[in-house]
Amino acid sequence: MGIGDQIRLFPGMKEVEELIRSKFSSDARLLREIPEYLLDLGGKRVRPALTLITAKMCGLPNLPQELLDVSAGIELIHMATLLHDDIIDRSPVRRGKTAPHLKFGEPATLLTGDFLLVRAFSLCAHLDNFIVSETEEACVYLTEGEILELPLSKQPCSVSESLTIAEKKTAALFGLAAVSGAHVAEAGDETEFALKRFGIELGIAFQILDDVLDVVADENLLGKRCGGDLVEQKPSLVNVLWLKSGSQEATEVLLSETPPTEAQVSSALQQLRSGADSRIIEEARAIADEKIAQANAALEQAVNSLRASSRLDEPSHQLLAGLIDYTVKRLR
Amino acid sequence: MGIGDQIRLFPGMKEVEELIRSKFSSDARLLREIPEYLLDLGGKRVRPALTLITAKMCGLPNLPQELLDVSAGIELIHMATLLHDDIIDRSPVRRGKTAPHLKFGEPATLLTGDFLLVRAFSLCAHLDNFIVSETEEACVYLTEGEILELPLSKQPCSVSESLTIAEKKTAALFGLAAVSGAHVAEAGDETEFALKRFGIELGIAFQILDDVLDVVADENLLGKRCGGDLVEQKPSLVNVLWLKSGSQEATEVLLSETPPTEAQVSSALQQLRSGADSRIIEEARAIADEKIAQANAALEQAVNSLRASSRLDEPSHQLLAGLIDYTVKRLR
Repeated sequence: MGIGDQIRLFPGMKEVEELIRSKFSSDARLLREIPEYLLDLGGKRVRPALTLITAKMCGLPNLPQELLDVSAGIELIHMATLLHDDIIDRSPVRRGKTAPHLKFGEPATLLTGDFLLVRAFSLCAHLDNFIVSETEEACVYLTEGEILELPLSKQPCSVSESLTIAEKKTAALFGLAAVSGAHVAEAGDETEFALKRFGIELGIAFQILDDVLDVVADENLLGKRCGGDLVEQKPSLVNVLWLKSGSQEATEVLLSETPPTEAQVSSALQQLRSGADSRIIEEARAIADEKIAQANAALEQAVNSLRASSRLDEPSHQLLAGLIDYTVKRLR
Repeated sequence: MGIGDQIRLFPGMKEVEELIRSKFSSDARLLREIPEYLLDLGGKRVRPALTLITAKMCGLPNLPQELLDVSAGIELIHMATLLHDDIIDRSPVRRGKTAPHLKFGEPATLLTGDFLLVRAFSLCAHLDNFIVSETEEACVYLTEGEILELPLSKQPCSVSESLTIAEKKTAALFGLAAVSGAHVAEAGDETEFALKRFGIELGIAFQILDDVLDVVADENLLGKRCGGDLVEQKPSLVNVLWLKSGSQEATEVLLSETPPTEAQVSSALQQLRSGADSRIIEEARAIADEKIAQANAALEQAVNSLRASSRLDEPSHQLLAGLIDYTVKRLR
């Protein structure tokens, strides 16, 4: 069974999916239809899966309501950011289909994002102070990551700054997912902290994977055109590394005041895929590998301490390790 | 001392203002600057005032942290909706100054709205279940009210539907403000419910006042051009009543597929201010008067029960009654 199916069938995923859908209730038709549309576009639900698998790995034998609530809340927050990000990025496509803001209009899509944030918070509000304050922190990081993500032509960005943006806009929610699961399982401060670190490092690797796929992916599998990050001159790790390499083409594409032409983007993709600059992709992969190694180290630290207290659920451990492997394989 | 000063100087208002500002902390410069800019545009902070005054009227002798938290949280939610609404309405002006989305850009303004929602929820999350669920309800109503508010040319709207939109988009937060104050003061279910009703009726009257002022106000005092609701063909009470009157001009202005011209708006304002259709404004005022009467009745019900248990703080009662009077006077 592939990792996607293992995640989909993991105990609690069905309940979380139902809980998420139950939160779309509203008098306003669009507040029901837009979230349904977004959810039906698919996705692996990797964030709630991370919470459920982490909790089980830490020895939680059942599915208490608070675990389902925080898992569903995290996915609702993620959905809200997808709706708002597509508006901000003016993305025409989401998972191969018309992006919600183009299908339903910008005003309704913006308000639906707010609606989902509200639903998420009310799901999480009754949880303990630790989870509430971790949720606030992750959500603040999300907005900070997005707001710091200006086009390279407007603001220079170092490799370290690019990784900070990735940590804030993507990895913070992965960290929240993992730490919430561990906390509900009462894994203890040290293990919880290690698993938060695991989630964050995995999340950064996921974001780098996204940046790499934006260059090298098969467009049919990606569900959108390649080169989006080039067009928007995003401070993605690939773009920042390319610019740092001193390439004249990178400067022309990424620092010009006007967006690059289609011909420029095609040529840039060609250079980065198999031309003189393909080592940029290798550099990005190497940095992702470092993050993967750190994710593995943090996971092992947690696992050792769980094993010492005989609380480790080994199949869940293997599944988390499989999630890391999956990221590594897609990077190649 | 005018009502504005009485509100500004009410015990707790300074602490709430400081608490609100303390929540703007962020690594991202714009997440600090945009809320500061919005807050510095002024405003009476009528929502947190409503919470503080209601709590004191119900006999609360001090300012517990939870009262300050919910008061600040409600104003933060209000600020988030102002940022998002201005994006949705493409309003160029807010309180006589450049609207935030034009000054700081749409992406940053949208994200700042999210940021403020997150800060508000984390302030309210530790409060008791009743306040959390009332906050969720009010916020869901806010988004529903906004999303139901389509241009009249796109969707017909009855008087009753227009009032429902006003209740959801404006009055729900007034109701939340009042009921939260009463709840923190442990006023008891019946009094809390009456004060929620008071807040909602007052909020609807406030929204009708807004709709009327959009036609009859002095533009310098209003801080923006009159006729915005006509231009956007909003389902405001004034517009809905005007259309219902059968006026040919109303049909041309409010139901045409293209927005009305400047000449059409000027003529419409003239008609509604002192022309044949000035009775429309009188009709709207009469409906506001009904809401004011209901607000008064709900307030009196609460006051009688507070008086019976010797918990009524009479000066605060007078201040709430003054807030109603203030609304009535501005309507004339």
